[in-house]
Amino acid sequence: MTHDLVITGAKVVTASGTTMCDIGITEGKIATLGTGLEGAEIIDAAGLIALPGGIDSHVHISQPSGPGIEMADDFSSGTRAAACGGNTTILPFCLPEEGMTLREAVADYRVKAEGNCLTDVSFHLIVKETDPVTLGQDLPALIADGYTSFKVFMTYEGLALSDRQILEVMSVAKAQGAMVMVHAENEDAIDFLRDQAERSGETGPYHHATTRPVPVEREATHRAISLAEIAGVPLTIVHVSNGEAMEEIQRARQRGLTVFAETCPQYITLTADDLDRDGFEGAKYVCSPPPRTSDEWGNIWRGIEQGTFDLFSSDHCPFRFVDTAGKDAPGARNSFRNIPNGIPGVETRLPILFSEGVVKGRLSLERFAALTATNHARLYGLYPRKGAIMVGADADIALWDPGLTKPIRQSDLHHGTDYTPWEGFEVTGWPVRTILRGVTTMLDGAPVADPIGHHLSRDAPDVLR
Amino acid sequence: MTHDLVITGAKVVTASGTTMCDIGITEGKIATLGTGLEGAEIIDAAGLIALPGGIDSHVHISQPSGPGIEMADDFSSGTRAAACGGNTTILPFCLPEEGMTLREAVADYRVKAEGNCLTDVSFHLIVKETDPVTLGQDLPALIADGYTSFKVFMTYEGLALSDRQILEVMSVAKAQGAMVMVHAENEDAIDFLRDQAERSGETGPYHHATTRPVPVEREATHRAISLAEIAGVPLTIVHVSNGEAMEEIQRARQRGLTVFAETCPQYITLTADDLDRDGFEGAKYVCSPPPRTSDEWGNIWRGIEQGTFDLFSSDHCPFRFVDTAGKDAPGARNSFRNIPNGIPGVETRLPILFSEGVVKGRLSLERFAALTATNHARLYGLYPRKGAIMVGADADIALWDPGLTKPIRQSDLHHGTDYTPWEGFEVTGWPVRTILRGVTTMLDGAPVADPIGHHLSRDAPDVLR
Amino acid sequence: MTHDLVITGAKVVTASGTTMCDIGITEGKIATLGTGLEGAEIIDAAGLIALPGGIDSHVHISQPSGPGIEMADDFSSGTRAAACGGNTTILPFCLPEEGMTLREAVADYRVKAEGNCLTDVSFHLIVKETDPVTLGQDLPALIADGYTSFKVFMTYEGLALSDRQILEVMSVAKAQGAMVMVHAENEDAIDFLRDQAERSGETGPYHHATTRPVPVEREATHRAISLAEIAGVPLTIVHVSNGEAMEEIQRARQRGLTVFAETCPQYITLTADDLDRDGFEGAKYVCSPPPRTSDEWGNIWRGIEQGTFDLFSSDHCPFRFVDTAGKDAPGARNSFRNIPNGIPGVETRLPILFSEGVVKGRLSLERFAALTATNHARLYGLYPRKGAIMVGADADIALWDPGLTKPIRQSDLHHGTDYTPWEGFEVTGWPVRTILRGVTTMLDGAPVADPIGHHLSRDAPDVLR
Amino acid sequence: MTHDLVITGAKVVTASGTTMCDIGITEGKIATLGTGLEGAEIIDAAGLIALPGGIDSHVHISQPSGPGIEMADDFSSGTRAAACGGNTTILPFCLPEEGMTLREAVADYRVKAEGNCLTDVSFHLIVKETDPVTLGQDLPALIADGYTSFKVFMTYEGLALSDRQILEVMSVAKAQGAMVMVHAENEDAIDFLRDQAERSGETGPYHHATTRPVPVEREATHRAISLAEIAGVPLTIVHVSNGEAMEEIQRARQRGLTVFAETCPQYITLTADDLDRDGFEGAKYVCSPPPRTSDEWGNIWRGIEQGTFDLFSSDHCPFRFVDTAGKDAPGARNSFRNIPNGIPGVETRLPILFSEGVVKGRLSLERFAALTATNHARLYGLYPRKGAIMVGADADIALWDPGLTKPIRQSDLHHGTDYTPWEGFEVTGWPVRTILRGVTTMLDGAPVADPIGHHLSRDAPDVLR
Repeated sequence: MTHDLVITGAKVVTASGTTMCDIGITEGKIATLGTGLEGAEIIDAAGLIALPGGIDSHVHISQPSGPGIEMADDFSSGTRAAACGGNTTILPFCLPEEGMTLREAVADYRVKAEGNCLTDVSFHLIVKETDPVTLGQDLPALIADGYTSFKVFMTYEGLALSDRQILEVMSVAKAQGAMVMVHAENEDAIDFLRDQAERSGETGPYHHATTRPVPVEREATHRAISLAEIAGVPLTIVHVSNGEAMEEIQRARQRGLTVFAETCPQYITLTADDLDRDGFEGAKYVCSPPPRTSDEWGNIWRGIEQGTFDLFSSDHCPFRFVDTAGKDAPGARNSFRNIPNGIPGVETRLPILFSEGVVKGRLSLERFAALTATNHARLYGLYPRKGAIMVGADADIALWDPGLTKPIRQSDLHHGTDYTPWEGFEVTGWPVRTILRGVTTMLDGAPVADPIGHHLSRDAPDVLR
Repeated sequence: MTHDLVITGAKVVTASGTTMCDIGITEGKIATLGTGLEGAEIIDAAGLIALPGGIDSHVHISQPSGPGIEMADDFSSGTRAAACGGNTTILPFCLPEEGMTLREAVADYRVKAEGNCLTDVSFHLIVKETDPVTLGQDLPALIADGYTSFKVFMTYEGLALSDRQILEVMSVAKAQGAMVMVHAENEDAIDFLRDQAERSGETGPYHHATTRPVPVEREATHRAISLAEIAGVPLTIVHVSNGEAMEEIQRARQRGLTVFAETCPQYITLTADDLDRDGFEGAKYVCSPPPRTSDEWGNIWRGIEQGTFDLFSSDHCPFRFVDTAGKDAPGARNSFRNIPNGIPGVETRLPILFSEGVVKGRLSLERFAALTATNHARLYGLYPRKGAIMVGADADIALWDPGLTKPIRQSDLHHGTDYTPWEGFEVTGWPVRTILRGVTTMLDGAPVADPIGHHLSRDAPDVLR
Repeated sequence: MTHDLVITGAKVVTASGTTMCDIGITEGKIATLGTGLEGAEIIDAAGLIALPGGIDSHVHISQPSGPGIEMADDFSSGTRAAACGGNTTILPFCLPEEGMTLREAVADYRVKAEGNCLTDVSFHLIVKETDPVTLGQDLPALIADGYTSFKVFMTYEGLALSDRQILEVMSVAKAQGAMVMVHAENEDAIDFLRDQAERSGETGPYHHATTRPVPVEREATHRAISLAEIAGVPLTIVHVSNGEAMEEIQRARQRGLTVFAETCPQYITLTADDLDRDGFEGAKYVCSPPPRTSDEWGNIWRGIEQGTFDLFSSDHCPFRFVDTAGKDAPGARNSFRNIPNGIPGVETRLPILFSEGVVKGRLSLERFAALTATNHARLYGLYPRKGAIMVGADADIALWDPGLTKPIRQSDLHHGTDYTPWEGFEVTGWPVRTILRGVTTMLDGAPVADPIGHHLSRDAPDVLR
Repeated sequence: MTHDLVITGAKVVTASGTTMCDIGITEGKIATLGTGLEGAEIIDAAGLIALPGGIDSHVHISQPSGPGIEMADDFSSGTRAAACGGNTTILPFCLPEEGMTLREAVADYRVKAEGNCLTDVSFHLIVKETDPVTLGQDLPALIADGYTSFKVFMTYEGLALSDRQILEVMSVAKAQGAMVMVHAENEDAIDFLRDQAERSGETGPYHHATTRPVPVEREATHRAISLAEIAGVPLTIVHVSNGEAMEEIQRARQRGLTVFAETCPQYITLTADDLDRDGFEGAKYVCSPPPRTSDEWGNIWRGIEQGTFDLFSSDHCPFRFVDTAGKDAPGARNSFRNIPNGIPGVETRLPILFSEGVVKGRLSLERFAALTATNHARLYGLYPRKGAIMVGADADIALWDPGLTKPIRQSDLHHGTDYTPWEGFEVTGWPVRTILRGVTTMLDGAPVADPIGHHLSRDAPDVLR
């Protein structure tokens, strides 16, 4: 059998193991793993590592962000950056604009994505209304259509749901077989602290961090878990930033609950002090939950190494500094309250974890694959189509050069925003080729394909099957 | 020096120790502890134990309870029952009726108490509004007037405050030096479960318990503690019913927070199964949080013995069964939702703890005194006037016959309701004489004095001084 | 390319994923995973599941067991039973007989195994002496020779090491790169309780359990972990039986320590009450730690499901009931102390976990593969040669019929002892073919090959590489 | 009634409360608490605080300390220092010299004390042999004679008992009604680390601390508790130095065990860095467990404030620096191993806790009384004779000047050693008069009485009555 494409010479990694073999690809799928395979095209990957293409299940793109603020990435730039960072699938969030139903929003979002993507994409839903039509009709219909995960917020004005609303959303998830993701921070407490800070004249970016302290996140984490316990559903806690919130997750598991947990690069590389940088530069580090202390890095690493965390995502949420916090953004200058929350990261997630984790000996290649691809696919219903180098799966592969060392530079990146929080951060180990369903989308750091990405309809999460 | 009254022959107990001595009383105060004291009147208490008069800091009396429902005790019957149960001070809650300000409510409540009390009384405030007048003017003024504690609810429609409101109330407590008490159950979760139960036709009294499960209380306990952590105030968690909520309190203390905890007789003697008794008898056991399992009794006892609990109160909240759950109370028969929450207990609290705790060897006399009187006085700003048999303190004393055994019988009690949840419960050790500021108010189970009780203005809690 | 053997039609499972594909085998190794593969021999495995051949890393065979007691399995019968239970590799323990050095014992053990095995084998060492020759010469030399794991005992007269000795052994492990396994029970406490029991006439098999209560195991578990913490080495706790010991492991991981944990079928299916069976039948269930309560089954399952446990082994340790506890075994009848500790289980381990775990929905196939093969290979230096269905690995495969239901029967088993503790235990899901390096060793429950098993020299554990 | 002595004007403190009253004393006992009392002698204590005389239940005096080393205090100097530090009772440890039985040692120790004491004294026994005579005859007889507490060591060559021995000692305590105290450090682990350190040339005093790290103490604490759990006895853990050991105690209590805990001034004021002071000065801080970090001070304070600790003792164990670590003590200079373990502290314990605890607002006066006197009396069978200012109790009182500020100076102290670890440590609040059974033993820092101290026979601990 002659394959369309054969990758030879690489060390091939899946979540189960690492071996030297050829990968034979036909019609966009992995047809054969073996040796001496024949192919119409051969990629010589000697010295490289073949990993499952990255899946970034926490990405914000073209998301309505409030009056006068436009997100810096659309599907075109966002998936281009993702592909250049070694990813083959991303899962952005579909948030209805004011006055739009969830189904309309999904339809609209599909249109925005169509024909513009350099990775495959699939959407999580953001549930911000719990009226009978949304919960009784739209959400069940969308789940049936393959939108099998949705996120609820415990913070942000206009997004935060009450506990009762969260329970109702969980009930739908339970009845229909979908996964609930939660952003766990206590809005009331933040609001209280924010008012207090502003009254005291504490209005700089740094006070974004002081008004969202650890107990605010720990509280909401325990509450979200308790609501899931009451509703009888599994739960995913996204972007966990600290050891106290981790402890709530560990305690829940010890009570027998099914709780998944995600963390992000910012919680092992940035600190609250970055928000205190001179000249309003701190605004470049405003995200929620905020980065904590370097002591918390140790806690998060322990959670990554020992299995508290299932997912390592970017929470890519890009805004242009010049627009939102620059000289002409007086709102932001008046108070941190007006700085849009979010930092870019879809292109740098994988290199940062590879360099800090694999190269520094904290993570095996298999665990890296699980944290960055396989577990995302399993948790969000894309497995076994995505997430593993396995016969029958989509030929989504990233080839890595484990010895390539260079700093992260905004000038090398492809996202739509005008800075990276990791400017100058030294990384060893970079993806040098990204392959989506057999087609090379990135080569040596540059995008090299047409926008061939598809939308993916998803099954129920593994845990619910 | 000749005293007005001398009690001789008793074993005298305070929170610090137990000794044989006379108690010399003059002008309503303890003037002397010694031997061979002279007095105008002598009480021979040989064979009895002299304990500080009980302080019950969790009592509901003449409290607005919703349309058509009248609480079964006013100050007259409530304090009569309290005195007959060995108490010399009670602290009921002042709740404004609809449309009344907090200050008006207090004035009104003072009038209701005036001249009708057989114990001394002082009021906690219930804060259900957080408008600027209440928080900015009324509450500070009332604290300054000696109302140095208030309660917030996380459950009950019309009473439950949002997290933001609780934080605002805590801010006032912090600024003015008062103690915040919290009823910790998650209203949204209860509401969700209640609707679910009703939809399933689960409407009997037992479902009061199933719709307020342990996670509902554990969640709110952790949340209340987190809010106190954020606001920077000490906190009292009232009526803790189970080991998981206790664990939250223990964890908080290990983080260095100041959290006080209260439990009640129902949580060491009743279970949820009592709510499932035949013939709608279960309605007699409806209180919040509900009684749990006999396994939880063990957890609560461990907390009592080892210091997790500071306070043992009754949460006396009396309704007449005939009115609220009897044949002519169709609302209650339609759904447990309509059964008023609360059970009577002010007269039986002390004998139950004495019998189950002291007589069964779980508690020393000193720890009994602390849990039932001294700690209440300290926590709520009545110490050293109240709560200990000590020179200079008010002569508030209960004389106990440790060997007297008899069952609890409704026919022997003095409260205004028509049943006791402990009917037939065998008790060894009863108070046989209650003395309020030197005057005998109860003798051999019967009230024997005019309503000489005063209202007490209070200092700040010990912990805030 | 034509393979020696192709397995077609099976659902193929590795720790990372499950897919439908052919497995092409050449020269005893997995050469290709793909579709439409050609082979000199074809096994049609339609409807079956292809799992990595089981690795049982906790097996006792031909082990010196005290005067007059002979272990019921030698390499011939032990590996035959293992193969018939779906295993392709086992790791028995090499224990020096009295007066023998460790190196002599290994040489002797190699001879016993040579030419008699139906699975591959490799040996853990039991360190019972800590003299300079053993620790300074023999152990380092043996590690260098590929015996990269050894076990220390905290119980059993003649085997138990002192804390100081354990630290010395750990030092060697640290210096040479080997894994320390520990049997964690406090010998002194057991001894104390055993003497006490015998003095009270409590001599039946049941008192084997009462004299090794949970605190005895929890204590030693925490101590072993503390010693590893002090010595700075990773540690494997074998045969964990209860939730309190599990909690020690979880706490250790939260402190950042590397601790692996193993459990066994007896701790999810048997209880201490089995030791109390009539007619001295209880002796058939005597093992250490003893089975606990059915409540503990729940704890152990939670640990299996949530990652506390890395390994599921048999602790196969077979004695013949007729010899050791039958009518002619008066020692055993005098006191449980004289009953040899251990039960058979190498043939039933995999079906029990498959039936109770996979079929009952508690475990995915991938997690089953990890717990029964992949993790054993990784932890004990056999990976990637063993433990996964992966190109380049040994073709060690078990084909399972997931729907086959039948009870466990001694008459169907192949071990050398005269009973099984699981007589009559209903199992759904049995291995129907075992393949060792491409050769079928078991078919439909019967051994079908010559003793082709090899001894395996091992690398350092994954975690130390 | 005219008293022998009346103390007027003081604020009078017991563990239960604080009030202004006179204390009337007759025949060495507190006869009356009241006002306007008449006395043959009057002490005007206006402005002072009357506290129960300190009880120091952890003191080493005239204890055999190994060849060539003499303890720096005998009963004369030790009780003189104790009285000058506000104490009225101390409990030193009776340790048999080599070849002496426990009963002989007690008789000998009684002789040494007789007529030489300025405080009352009573002895704990140190059990270092567990032969049948000691456990079967001597110990029961001594318990019957009022020596109702004994200590076992898990460290120190020649003193450390095996787990089996500890269990046997606990059995005697259980049968006879006595309290077991334990020094919890793992000797084997220390020994291992000490040998390792010496081999590396790490021989200075600082390495006393590094070779007894926190896990060494945490391990032994958990083990001691587990042994007590197995034997079914309450337990006292002495001189707890850190948060991890505290956590073991908290966990044990949550399991329902009765565990008491003691800490000492060194663990809230000194650190391991003190052992690293220049010029061999570090030897002045060598005690076991060693002081830790200032972070651990916070943990210990939390335990003091929140009830983890019942006892605050000195662990006074005085050696002369000039003898044991000075220039002519070459053993000590060769290795920290040869520095005798122990620091002086009987005279400074109370002022340090008063200053750091009461004056800094961490402790109430009542809690100070409990930690320094009442709880010691209760735990070791001296209550109600000792430990509280209560009618009928011994008139053991310390009068404190809460505003007196001065540094600790060796030149002001009365112990037999030649230094204090707290030289220059600033203290506010000093005892200015100590009264033993009505007789002033210290005035303004100087001893003023003949050696009137008695030996006290003790009852069983409160908890066992």
